[in-house]
Amino acid sequence: MKILENWKQQWQSLVLGYHFMQLVKAPYGDFAKIGRLSQEINDIYGMKLVAEFLSRYPQGKKALQERPRLGNVNLQELHQLPENTLGYAYANHMITNGLKPLLNRSIADDPFSFIAAHLGETHDIWHVVTGCPTNKAGEIKLEAFYVAQIYPSRFWIALLAKNLLKTALEDIELCEQHFDALTQGWLLGKQAEPLFGIQWNQLWEMPLEQLRTQLKLNSQFSFNLV
Amino acid sequence: MKILENWKQQWQSLVLGYHFMQLVKAPYGDFAKIGRLSQEINDIYGMKLVAEFLSRYPQGKKALQERPRLGNVNLQELHQLPENTLGYAYANHMITNGLKPLLNRSIADDPFSFIAAHLGETHDIWHVVTGCPTNKAGEIKLEAFYVAQIYPSRFWIALLAKNLLKTALEDIELCEQHFDALTQGWLLGKQAEPLFGIQWNQLWEMPLEQLRTQLKLNSQFSFNLV
Repeated sequence: MKILENWKQQWQSLVLGYHFMQLVKAPYGDFAKIGRLSQEINDIYGMKLVAEFLSRYPQGKKALQERPRLGNVNLQELHQLPENTLGYAYANHMITNGLKPLLNRSIADDPFSFIAAHLGETHDIWHVVTGCPTNKAGEIKLEAFYVAQIYPSRFWIALLAKNLLKTALEDIELCEQHFDALTQGWLLGKQAEPLFGIQWNQLWEMPLEQLRTQLKLNSQFSFNLV
Repeated sequence: MKILENWKQQWQSLVLGYHFMQLVKAPYGDFAKIGRLSQEINDIYGMKLVAEFLSRYPQGKKALQERPRLGNVNLQELHQLPENTLGYAYANHMITNGLKPLLNRSIADDPFSFIAAHLGETHDIWHVVTGCPTNKAGEIKLEAFYVAQIYPSRFWIALLAKNLLKTALEDIELCEQHFDALTQGWLLGKQAEPLFGIQWNQLWEMPLEQLRTQLKLNSQFSFNLV
């Protein structure tokens, strides 16, 4: 049985290595391949650790119990709001980048499915409120922000590992940008209030800067030595 | 020819993926596997970028021209120096960790071989002066320090990518330690004076703290928001 178990582990490792490298070679943002990595790397133990972490503060605990969804979003309507609002900024981000909100699909009745659905449907709101652009460095910054806030997620760490290897192989000239982004995202994620569980659809009319201040998201880092 | 080239690239990618995953599964500090990664990932273009970066400041430029070696090191002798010296601290680090200095092997007559030999033989001195311990977080901090100082090195970035994937798969509980270490190493590496090319064997008797101050290495970071 031990030999069989060893073989199984070797095989899983080979398959993961193959898919990891496929992802490294794929264009940034290849969601099908990212989804496959997510399926392979997330296990019950890891997901329980994350759920436990998210339950430590009332907002996260409440969200895991009540599982509020973003619902369907009308970008054209939000784009009519004043330009300083979250709703306008989000709609503008989506329209400018040619993106569409995820459909409000029904999900399985368990906390892990909710976490995945919630993070998926709010991903672009996180882009907007954290101020991370959708270029490579911006995605890396946001991924490191996720590592700090959806802690400790095998998936987000693996995605960063993929992007570092991709930087080494394909984007060596962007190394400084990418490491600065990773550093800033991690520090900002630790510094900010938790974003998981926020009911964003009740905040569309709120001024973005006010929201960013409340969430401790609107500051620049000083990397001073003391 | 294009099909052949594509096949070659696919094959190289598969081989690299296989070795990358072998390294992920290997214990930390498996030097044989790390050496293999180095051979596969370093190319002339990447090494030229690094050599060009190191030549930008006089100490690095001089070292690349004169190629001074550390020479043979007598740990027992260094261990007799006063306890506040670099020499004592280095010898103590080596003895405590059961390490032996690398032999003063002759190398090929080119700058890349010198860079590799110099970094290899001074690696543990870098541990001592940067204050990075030899545990997992300490190695990650030092690797990120290298990324900033031996810039932009495909090898050190790939080694960090490996350690992030290893964190995701095997050491998920150490995630915060490892990300803090990566962040601190990167920032310290950017902040510090260049370490490449220092003739450490002329500094054994210097007080370690004085040296760390000169090299801007003895400070703690404040991750304050402004």
